[in-house]
Amino acid sequence: MLTIEYDGSNFSGWQRQPNARTVQGEMEKVLTKVCGAKVELNGTSRTDAGVHALGQRASFKGEYGIPTDKIMNASNNHLCGGKRLGSLIGDIRIKNLEEKPLDFHARFDSKGKKYRYVIQNGGQVNIFRRNYCYYVEAPLDIESMKDAAKYIIGTHDFACFQASGSQIRETTVRTVYDLDVYKDSDDVILEISGDGFLYNMVRIIAGTLVEVGLGKIKPDKVKLAIDSGLRQNAGHTAPAQGLYLVEVYYE
Amino acid sequence: MLTIEYDGSNFSGWQRQPNARTVQGEMEKVLTKVCGAKVELNGTSRTDAGVHALGQRASFKGEYGIPTDKIMNASNNHLCGGKRLGSLIGDIRIKNLEEKPLDFHARFDSKGKKYRYVIQNGGQVNIFRRNYCYYVEAPLDIESMKDAAKYIIGTHDFACFQASGSQIRETTVRTVYDLDVYKDSDDVILEISGDGFLYNMVRIIAGTLVEVGLGKIKPDKVKLAIDSGLRQNAGHTAPAQGLYLVEVYYE
Repeated sequence: MLTIEYDGSNFSGWQRQPNARTVQGEMEKVLTKVCGAKVELNGTSRTDAGVHALGQRASFKGEYGIPTDKIMNASNNHLCGGKRLGSLIGDIRIKNLEEKPLDFHARFDSKGKKYRYVIQNGGQVNIFRRNYCYYVEAPLDIESMKDAAKYIIGTHDFACFQASGSQIRETTVRTVYDLDVYKDSDDVILEISGDGFLYNMVRIIAGTLVEVGLGKIKPDKVKLAIDSGLRQNAGHTAPAQGLYLVEVYYE
Repeated sequence: MLTIEYDGSNFSGWQRQPNARTVQGEMEKVLTKVCGAKVELNGTSRTDAGVHALGQRASFKGEYGIPTDKIMNASNNHLCGGKRLGSLIGDIRIKNLEEKPLDFHARFDSKGKKYRYVIQNGGQVNIFRRNYCYYVEAPLDIESMKDAAKYIIGTHDFACFQASGSQIRETTVRTVYDLDVYKDSDDVILEISGDGFLYNMVRIIAGTLVEVGLGKIKPDKVKLAIDSGLRQNAGHTAPAQGLYLVEVYYE
C-alpha cells in the first residue's frame, strides 16, 4: 500500500488515460520500471484534473524480488525525473509504502476519506496560489456556513450534491462524519470526512457553502436541497484547484 | 509604464522567443490585441525561465485611442484566458499602468532593482513549493551567511558572480546597496538591492551564501572570491525557482 501526495495542477486527474498525463499513469510507469514487471495500481480516489492529494492511497500486488523499502526510494528518484529548472522535487511523491496481507485492496478496504477545500476570502489576488485555492473576493459569513454545515453532517441521500449526468450505479446515501468550517488568516477552510463521496460532491458542497456565506442561499435551504434530491437546489460546483484529498481511513 | 507580476514556472523566461511561451511574448500578444496595433515592450529585467516577478516594470509607447486605465483591465481579462480548471487567475497580472513622459524607457531610466531569493531550509519536502523556493535540507548557519554578505555590499567588480561564458560587453563593476539575510519560519530569505546585476549574479550569490551557511565556504573566502574575479572561486548557481524580482527603482 502506497501513501502518495501530488500537486494536481499539471495532471488530467488520477485515472489512467491513453493520451494524457495522469497520476495513476505516471505512477504505474515508474513502478513498472522499478519493479521490472507490469504494475497496475488501485487508487482509493479518482481525483479530477487539478485536484491535489496529501494522502492518496493506492495498492498493487506482486513479487518482484526487491525489498519493499527500496521500491519507494527508487520510485521517488524516478518521479523527480520530471524535474525542471533545477528543482529536485517532482509533483508526485510517495510518502510511505508498506506491505499488507495479500487480499488487501486500497479502495475496497477503505472505510472513508477526509477532504479539505481551501478558499482564499478577500485580500489581494495572488497569482502564485491560482492552482491551490478558490479565490472569493466578497466576505463570507462563517457563522451561516457553519449553520448550513450542520444539515450536511450525518447519513443522508446526497443526490442533490452529485454532478448532474453522473452514472448512478447504486445508492446516493452517504454518511458525512464531520464538516468543519474555519478561518485561517485570509482563508476559509472546509474539512469534510465521510464514508464515501458522490461524483463532485465535495466541490458542490463547497460551492453551496460559498453561496451560503455570500448570503445567496439561506442556511436552512441546504436542508431543503438535500430533502429534494435535486441538483438545481444546491449551489455551484467550486473549482477543482481548491480541493485536497487529505486522508483515507482503514480499520 | 506597466508594473507586472508573474509566476515564472510555466514561462521560458521574459524575453520574446519564436517558439516558446515567454512573458514578453504573452504580454505583447495581449497588448497588441487590446490596443489594436503592434506593441513592443521594453522590460527592465530579462528574467530567466522559472524566475518569478512581483514588480517587473516595462514600457511601450503609442497613441491607440484607448484610455490608459482601460488598457490594464482589458489586458488582465485576456491574461486570464490562460485559465484552466475553473481558475479565473492567470500567471501574469498587470498591477499598475501609468502614463509617463514620451521619452521614458523602463529599462534605461531605472536606477536599480531589488531581488528576493527564497530558501526552504529543513522541514518536510513540500511538493507544492517545488517551483517557488530552493529546498536545502541541512541546517544553514545564518550568522556566517550574514558575515559573508557584508563583503558583497558596496561597489565591487563582481566578475566572480557572473555566469561563465557570459558576453562581457562592458564593466563588471556594480554597486550592491544592501544584502539582507533573515529567517522566516522554515525559510531563509535573501534580499538584495543594487544598481544592476550581472547575468545570474543573484543566483550565484545565493548559491555561494548557501555554501557558506553549510560550512563549505568560509565567510572571508567570499571576499577573496570577489578580489580574484574568478567564477570558480564562488559557489554554485542556485536554481531559478527561488528567485523573485521584487522591485525596480526610478528617480
